[in-house]
Amino acid sequence: MKPEYSIGIDIGGTNTDIGLVNSVGECVASYRIRTGNYSDPEEYVNHLMDSVLLLLETNKIKSMTGIGIGVPNGNFYTGCIDNAVNLNFKGEIPLRNMIQKRIDCKVVVTNDANAAAYGEMVYGGARGMKDFIMITLGTGVGSGIVVNGKMVYGHDGYAGELGHTIIFPGGRMCKCGRQGCLERYTSAGGIKRTYIELMKKEYGDLFTLEKEDAVSSKQISDAAEAGDPIAKKVFDFTGYILGLSLANAAAITSPKAIFLMGGPVKAGNILLDPLKKSFEENVLFYYKDKIKILVSHLNENEAAILGAAALTNME
Amino acid sequence: MKPEYSIGIDIGGTNTDIGLVNSVGECVASYRIRTGNYSDPEEYVNHLMDSVLLLLETNKIKSMTGIGIGVPNGNFYTGCIDNAVNLNFKGEIPLRNMIQKRIDCKVVVTNDANAAAYGEMVYGGARGMKDFIMITLGTGVGSGIVVNGKMVYGHDGYAGELGHTIIFPGGRMCKCGRQGCLERYTSAGGIKRTYIELMKKEYGDLFTLEKEDAVSSKQISDAAEAGDPIAKKVFDFTGYILGLSLANAAAITSPKAIFLMGGPVKAGNILLDPLKKSFEENVLFYYKDKIKILVSHLNENEAAILGAAALTNME
Repeated sequence: MKPEYSIGIDIGGTNTDIGLVNSVGECVASYRIRTGNYSDPEEYVNHLMDSVLLLLETNKIKSMTGIGIGVPNGNFYTGCIDNAVNLNFKGEIPLRNMIQKRIDCKVVVTNDANAAAYGEMVYGGARGMKDFIMITLGTGVGSGIVVNGKMVYGHDGYAGELGHTIIFPGGRMCKCGRQGCLERYTSAGGIKRTYIELMKKEYGDLFTLEKEDAVSSKQISDAAEAGDPIAKKVFDFTGYILGLSLANAAAITSPKAIFLMGGPVKAGNILLDPLKKSFEENVLFYYKDKIKILVSHLNENEAAILGAAALTNME
Repeated sequence: MKPEYSIGIDIGGTNTDIGLVNSVGECVASYRIRTGNYSDPEEYVNHLMDSVLLLLETNKIKSMTGIGIGVPNGNFYTGCIDNAVNLNFKGEIPLRNMIQKRIDCKVVVTNDANAAAYGEMVYGGARGMKDFIMITLGTGVGSGIVVNGKMVYGHDGYAGELGHTIIFPGGRMCKCGRQGCLERYTSAGGIKRTYIELMKKEYGDLFTLEKEDAVSSKQISDAAEAGDPIAKKVFDFTGYILGLSLANAAAITSPKAIFLMGGPVKAGNILLDPLKKSFEENVLFYYKDKIKILVSHLNENEAAILGAAALTNME
């Protein structure tokens, strides 16, 4: 008989969420550790696996399908994390092998955005869709692209890096070493940077904040909601940029829908209205009014956990 | 026994090439008509089919696999040409049905760039590759995207419109009704437009050419080859723009190679050197030095014809 449970792990730049998922796709228990606290991958994986074993033990789980992991630059083919720009771990980290030293089970690794897309396809709003794009806005900007019912991995497992397409050559410096990536404008940090730039433009030296940590994207969206014109302009700009980029991405894979998830999406229509307007204005005429821009139907953390867990059922 | 021959048709904005292709992928006879001379699709299809029947008759072909057609905005799912911006035929043209009124055989329609990609995959440099992109530079800029060995059609059959991604918002007016599409900078016409703009900037009112027809992209590449600094700058700019766009496209599907074909590609290193430089400079670090930029291994006209003909063997 097939085991009833599997473990789904969502590794983000800030937090790692570990979920115990049952066979009908419910996350019955979860645990969180701080990814950002670790710079040594050995130490991180040890704490991660202690947590996994604890989760299994406290829930009295004797057998499970396996462990699925969504992580920035997770490579489906090799099971490694490769040079993830939003993690403290540099170089190639053989995550799958490191985990299998601690536990004897199936371990599947993929990009965090791919895992989220998989969660949306299996349990969310993309059920029954064969062509869609999942965009995750957070510390970075990720994308999972599904074509004809299958995840696009590309020839080396690195496909789906929409966040690292250059939209302003010579623009903002990105952690990837280049300038002007989409991620630097539409991630949580990008939104904060836009706010700081606009405030400096408005108030000059009176505005002394320099670092993105000094303000949260939630504070900016709350201000926009309350009618603050600069905060509103921040989201108009963010929506415009993302809408244009998604219109261009649509011209490549012609999806039926584009799903959005992550912190900045919680701003709601403050972001979505200018985004949808920009998308429709910038998309090629034969895609107009055909491609839905949707907010993920799944809870943000759960989507990635469920998608990761579902990976363990794949062939 | 399977028939030995099939017909491949490559419909371009200027010319339509009709080829009789044998079972080993040789175009044994071909015929050309001027697409640009027709504005009535009925009249055009009648002349096209007269030519097909003549080709079969003069070569004494009694039976064949079918007719495969590559055409701008050809829809694989519906068999129609839909609002092709580079053809005189507007609206939805039910090409497959119109042809089948004249001949009783299998008829497969797809995008011209997809047909070229298919030709490259079956007979050219992409043999054995599962992930690659074909870029066709001509009257327009087309792209055929292959992921995991399969053509990307998208949910409605319109995928692969890299030429209509917006690279300069508010830029040059495109036939598609929007501004700043890649096509307006890197097609033959785009190259000519860049030349006219640079000449006007250099010589002001002394340079009186206005229309793109007044000069050919071949003349400009010949001038660049001979050392003309403005003509050279035209190709530096074209290569830069195309390299940046291909670097962005690579981040979406992570191909093993990108193939180029079409008139402007004949400029050789005058175009390819700045293109490759821009691609490597603008591509995300983990794709660097991994993705080959290659000129199609097939003769330009034949690739589309062979690809189209090969379509008739698909399930």
